[in-house]
Amino acid sequence: MECTAMEHYKIEKEKNRLWLTENSYAPLYELKTESIFAQCNGYMGVRAVHPFLSVEESRGMFLCGVFDKAYENEVTELVNCPDITWFGIEIDAEKIHTDSTKLHSCTRKIDILSGELRLFYVFELSTGTLVEIEVKRFASLDNKHLFMQSYRVHICNGIGKNIKITTGINGQITNSGVSHFHSVTERVYDREVMESRGELEENIVTVLTACTIKTGTVAKKDFTLKRRSIYGIYSFTEENDIEIEKAAYIYQGGETEDCRARRYMDCFKNTGYQKQFCMHRKQMQNFWRKAGIGIEGNGLEQQAAISFSQYHMLGMTPPDRAECSIAAKGLTGEGYKGHVFWDTEIFILPFLIYTYPEKARQLLMFRYLGLEKARQKAKEYGYQGAMFPWEAAKTGEEETPKYAALNIHTGKANRVWSGIKEYHVTADVIYAVEQYFTVTGDREFMEQCGYEMIFEAAKFWVSCAKWDETEHRYCIYDVIGPDEYTEHINNNAYTNYMAEFCVKTACRYARQLKEGGHKECSRLEQRTGFLEYLEKFEEFLSKIYLPKPGRNGIIPQDDTFLSKPCLQEIEKYKSSQVKQAVLLDYSRDEIVNMQVLKQADVIMLFDLFPRLFPDDIVRKNILFYEKRTLHDSSLSYCVHAQASAYTGDKKAADRFFKKALFIDLNDNPYDSADGIHSASMGGIWNCLIFGFAGVRFTGTEVWIRPCLPENWKEISFFLTLCKIEIQFAVSEKRIVMEATKELKEPLYVCVEDKRYTFVRSLELYRDTGETKEWKKKSEDVSLT
Amino acid sequence: MECTAMEHYKIEKEKNRLWLTENSYAPLYELKTESIFAQCNGYMGVRAVHPFLSVEESRGMFLCGVFDKAYENEVTELVNCPDITWFGIEIDAEKIHTDSTKLHSCTRKIDILSGELRLFYVFELSTGTLVEIEVKRFASLDNKHLFMQSYRVHICNGIGKNIKITTGINGQITNSGVSHFHSVTERVYDREVMESRGELEENIVTVLTACTIKTGTVAKKDFTLKRRSIYGIYSFTEENDIEIEKAAYIYQGGETEDCRARRYMDCFKNTGYQKQFCMHRKQMQNFWRKAGIGIEGNGLEQQAAISFSQYHMLGMTPPDRAECSIAAKGLTGEGYKGHVFWDTEIFILPFLIYTYPEKARQLLMFRYLGLEKARQKAKEYGYQGAMFPWEAAKTGEEETPKYAALNIHTGKANRVWSGIKEYHVTADVIYAVEQYFTVTGDREFMEQCGYEMIFEAAKFWVSCAKWDETEHRYCIYDVIGPDEYTEHINNNAYTNYMAEFCVKTACRYARQLKEGGHKECSRLEQRTGFLEYLEKFEEFLSKIYLPKPGRNGIIPQDDTFLSKPCLQEIEKYKSSQVKQAVLLDYSRDEIVNMQVLKQADVIMLFDLFPRLFPDDIVRKNILFYEKRTLHDSSLSYCVHAQASAYTGDKKAADRFFKKALFIDLNDNPYDSADGIHSASMGGIWNCLIFGFAGVRFTGTEVWIRPCLPENWKEISFFLTLCKIEIQFAVSEKRIVMEATKELKEPLYVCVEDKRYTFVRSLELYRDTGETKEWKKKSEDVSLT
Repeated sequence: MECTAMEHYKIEKEKNRLWLTENSYAPLYELKTESIFAQCNGYMGVRAVHPFLSVEESRGMFLCGVFDKAYENEVTELVNCPDITWFGIEIDAEKIHTDSTKLHSCTRKIDILSGELRLFYVFELSTGTLVEIEVKRFASLDNKHLFMQSYRVHICNGIGKNIKITTGINGQITNSGVSHFHSVTERVYDREVMESRGELEENIVTVLTACTIKTGTVAKKDFTLKRRSIYGIYSFTEENDIEIEKAAYIYQGGETEDCRARRYMDCFKNTGYQKQFCMHRKQMQNFWRKAGIGIEGNGLEQQAAISFSQYHMLGMTPPDRAECSIAAKGLTGEGYKGHVFWDTEIFILPFLIYTYPEKARQLLMFRYLGLEKARQKAKEYGYQGAMFPWEAAKTGEEETPKYAALNIHTGKANRVWSGIKEYHVTADVIYAVEQYFTVTGDREFMEQCGYEMIFEAAKFWVSCAKWDETEHRYCIYDVIGPDEYTEHINNNAYTNYMAEFCVKTACRYARQLKEGGHKECSRLEQRTGFLEYLEKFEEFLSKIYLPKPGRNGIIPQDDTFLSKPCLQEIEKYKSSQVKQAVLLDYSRDEIVNMQVLKQADVIMLFDLFPRLFPDDIVRKNILFYEKRTLHDSSLSYCVHAQASAYTGDKKAADRFFKKALFIDLNDNPYDSADGIHSASMGGIWNCLIFGFAGVRFTGTEVWIRPCLPENWKEISFFLTLCKIEIQFAVSEKRIVMEATKELKEPLYVCVEDKRYTFVRSLELYRDTGETKEWKKKSEDVSLT
Repeated sequence: MECTAMEHYKIEKEKNRLWLTENSYAPLYELKTESIFAQCNGYMGVRAVHPFLSVEESRGMFLCGVFDKAYENEVTELVNCPDITWFGIEIDAEKIHTDSTKLHSCTRKIDILSGELRLFYVFELSTGTLVEIEVKRFASLDNKHLFMQSYRVHICNGIGKNIKITTGINGQITNSGVSHFHSVTERVYDREVMESRGELEENIVTVLTACTIKTGTVAKKDFTLKRRSIYGIYSFTEENDIEIEKAAYIYQGGETEDCRARRYMDCFKNTGYQKQFCMHRKQMQNFWRKAGIGIEGNGLEQQAAISFSQYHMLGMTPPDRAECSIAAKGLTGEGYKGHVFWDTEIFILPFLIYTYPEKARQLLMFRYLGLEKARQKAKEYGYQGAMFPWEAAKTGEEETPKYAALNIHTGKANRVWSGIKEYHVTADVIYAVEQYFTVTGDREFMEQCGYEMIFEAAKFWVSCAKWDETEHRYCIYDVIGPDEYTEHINNNAYTNYMAEFCVKTACRYARQLKEGGHKECSRLEQRTGFLEYLEKFEEFLSKIYLPKPGRNGIIPQDDTFLSKPCLQEIEKYKSSQVKQAVLLDYSRDEIVNMQVLKQADVIMLFDLFPRLFPDDIVRKNILFYEKRTLHDSSLSYCVHAQASAYTGDKKAADRFFKKALFIDLNDNPYDSADGIHSASMGGIWNCLIFGFAGVRFTGTEVWIRPCLPENWKEISFFLTLCKIEIQFAVSEKRIVMEATKELKEPLYVCVEDKRYTFVRSLELYRDTGETKEWKKKSEDVSLT
């Protein structure tokens, strides 16, 4: 049976199209729909607002890497850039508004496969005239600066004596009332191309736009300037069918760009929406060919939700050469100020490492470019090495505010601890570096950046661990783990294991470099002093406290967690529509002192280190901790789903997976209002590949342990291992792998304790007989 | 017959109330209605927005003297402060919006006599439930920091199971997309009083607000913080009648104020809307008693329009001790950036000089405080003395931008010349100073400020006049006169006459001070060096070129005006609904070279110097120039009306007066969108008193020359002459004057060449016999 997570949004399949549809004008869902239907191509993200002004709207265009700090007391944030989507239409002096004009029907839909947005309205004017308006939009993947729109106005019963269409560039947009542009200047070239140029402290954002009339005759064309905005006014007389295309070219400063942009706008006059769309779709098709996940047997809604998450993964990934990363909300909203969290490395990067390794490299480069700031942060808090920022914007500086808004009742500033105490991000980044190297074998990156990051992170960890005289071990005190409902705790299991992983990795590479007499050795020694630290790394590794499962098999989340009382009536909060509903009944201090989790914490370890604990321990811990977890973070369900799948608990995996799948698409109108949940999108991919397909890669071995939900027949996808694309088709009955070209060095494929050599292709099937053993399809099963 | 200038707004008279009413929800008129229905008490102005968000709205609260420059490239402007009027209401999960909820009726009306705004809505929810909402608001005249609101929600057919009302303070408001507050912090005191504190470069604006539930039981009260805003959420269950009062206390920084504000909010709990309104109304009644103008025989609409202009004159006048002046849009909108122009001194000040002389003094003080900046401006342009700014904000600095927005087509910056070339403002200020002294006899002000201003202004004029060798006279070259459709002209008549007036005044006082051996003489000499300039003043006066009427009686507006061609089809532009429609067909350069005026120029002279020219010259010039005037400025009709009345042209006067009277109230929805027209309000008063009643005061003589429009039977008002309030009742048949107390020194009343002594009361009537002579009612007509 199809799951029914969505009521408000519908799925419609057409040839080459997969529409996610909103069939009514729904102000309650407005902000959410604007986020999840947004047009994003990695360079820009444009919220899917109605073309007409509406009361509940929140217009937004965000450009990758365009950050600004408006005032001393404000936080650096992703700038909400000028709006290009507003479309004013007046027919015989009657203005059309979504809110106030009688609306016979309203459809807003996004084709998940191409990212094209379609808006369709039937309005009835006060005169009884019926007006159909159709709008199309996409952010081009073929030219990342290009945003295309098409408007069609059709008067069904009669003609419009005077039709006035106004559209242009509105630079009055702010980040919730905070303006960033120091100045905005506008002009018109050749009575065709409008330009708005906005100056930030460090960037110039330029928007060029031009309209082409495809149907209808313009009786009069004017341009009008308002504060920070410019509009073209196109007047028509006695028309009933008007079609206008609007191209916008958006870029950041620079004369070279100016020339290119001007040339581009010239060229646009000869192409138009449809042709640009074809070019864009070709790029989209390349994406799906490479990144698409095929599942036989899951329903349309689930398939659409998976594709939806992949559309957004594409849309949030920065274009080439931009020194920027992926925000918690991608480019779809103002939420979390456009900051980069651990979400990127732990949740989103795996998809890129296995699919677009060059993008993964670029995102890790972002962290490397911030290394100096990370060193400064460590120094500031009295540590050695580098502490990566909990929240980053552009420079890698710590952007987490030290104080949140005042406690409105006491007037006291609420200290924000995550920027200082969520140490784990410094290991999370290293985990991603190591994963990247494992999967790609990109030694050059490691030599240029990776080793340095690893050593600096490891230096931080050995410097922050404290020696416990009583227990004779190194401890990590006063941290916040992934579960943010606990604060100032000691020996958070996730943190300690990740720290150990980081130092172990550093230790291994340090030894390799030292022993191998590597040419980079002296440069790296000069920059990091890693040889001097080697002993400290070893000492740390021999004595770091790693919380082990207790007699009941439970790994303590931290030193005190298991001794705290449980939250009463936890089911009430688990089922609440309101996020973090528990905070309405309990103070933060009370919650810190209860066994209640915001999100997966210990469980994360099982996903990151799948063979660290025996399956029964993993199962016990999932059961134990899930009971205590509110999943108040969008980073939670996908982690539980993946861990459950890996341990073979199909039902639990399926249940959690469906929750994760609809984090953005569910019917809660308040979710996603300020942007989609990037990490959850990545988590869905991780769950599919690492969880259900059960594929992991160690650099030489591919382990496969499939565990598909009921009804799913097969899951197929491409992964790029050691620079070779390999197609996988996996079920519990059959495993097929096919490389696009022959591997230079063979890999080993491990399935249930058997190891098969893989050079170009491999097909395994499970014996239907009594043994249920896996067998190679060809005769010679190469047992090792 | 009643004039019919208004269709959209209606007048309704009730006991003690005079309502100006909008009887429908009219988005087209939204911005205009918000401006003209605004609640203003001199300290604050709050635009009359709907309590619910609507698409076409422009929320605004402006505080007297709260200016800020957001960025280097922006202009210092009156800051749009946090909003306190938004009122969110949700009944059984349905949000009410003016645009999207079915609206059975909508009435918005302002009681011109008290300034109270009433909004009344009948909504039909999607369930069929009828909801009446009534909102009342006023800005208190009793406590200038206080803004009161009352909301009543009544469910006509049934109850609301869950009613959620949200209201508070929204600091996300910007000046058309430009934010000014560097930081905004919020808090709640005692779960009652919400506070928002916004920091500007030079001010702190604090808003305190508290809600009191008058009817209904609050089931739950929450406070919620959003970026730059704070809201109280009041939930009710099973109610059908809810009444909430909301008091807001708004002030600028300072701990003393903090204490006072907190005390005040405490006190509010015991008073409430009605009591505060009574206290406010008492102050309003005082205003009407003193400033009201009674006219017998004009219709209700005209009377209302006159009262309307007076309500706004009151609303724009700064409170005591604030060092600020009156903006071109008062406190009702963002238009002209809240800047102060010559409008204040020439159009608005007469009302204050004759009614609230202490306020007039304060406004002149504003200019005096800016004298140093005016000296700097003169120096910057190579002149001596002081040049007052064409646009001023707070400091008296010239705020006119040197460049306007780029020419959007050429990309070239449009130079703005008015800040440099509208020299006349420097004489306009002096005219007001001299008027103030004439009417009040306030020698202290003159000694402390007035003389210094006059001397500095005169120094400017003598330094900017150039010697014309050919004609042997001083000329003033390259100026802009009041008519801004001409630029870079020589010897603008208005400018030259005003310059002469200024220097003549300076000369007279310089001689007096010198000859009288006045104690202030040496201090003033030190500050201004006026004694040294005396000769120059005299030289200037003897040779300044004052354009005289030509053979046809026409005074040339400037050296070249009369030689330019006339604008063809001027009637087309005169009757256009669109302001400055001529600019759509002609470039500015073309217009400069035609005989076409934006506004009164030469005619202004007749108003300011009523006996300078013989009546027939005045009449000829009015006729000549009016034909060439588009009245594209709101400063034009009132000037023509006054001049026409003074020369006895009743019909023309009446026609122009009606135009002036409805500058803000007319049916053109685009007028007044960004604020009311302050100068026109003042111009209406000037026309009534100086024009129709024909009263002028020379300091010792009151000249009276009544010329009432047809149908008007009598006009009555108070004027304060030499600190004594005198009631006037004037018609063409009777003149009555009655002082509130006996004058120490008698005045002379001059009517048609006869002079009567006035000490306490006087009644004159026109003989009904053949001579039509004026006679004193008592036997002894004191002919002199």
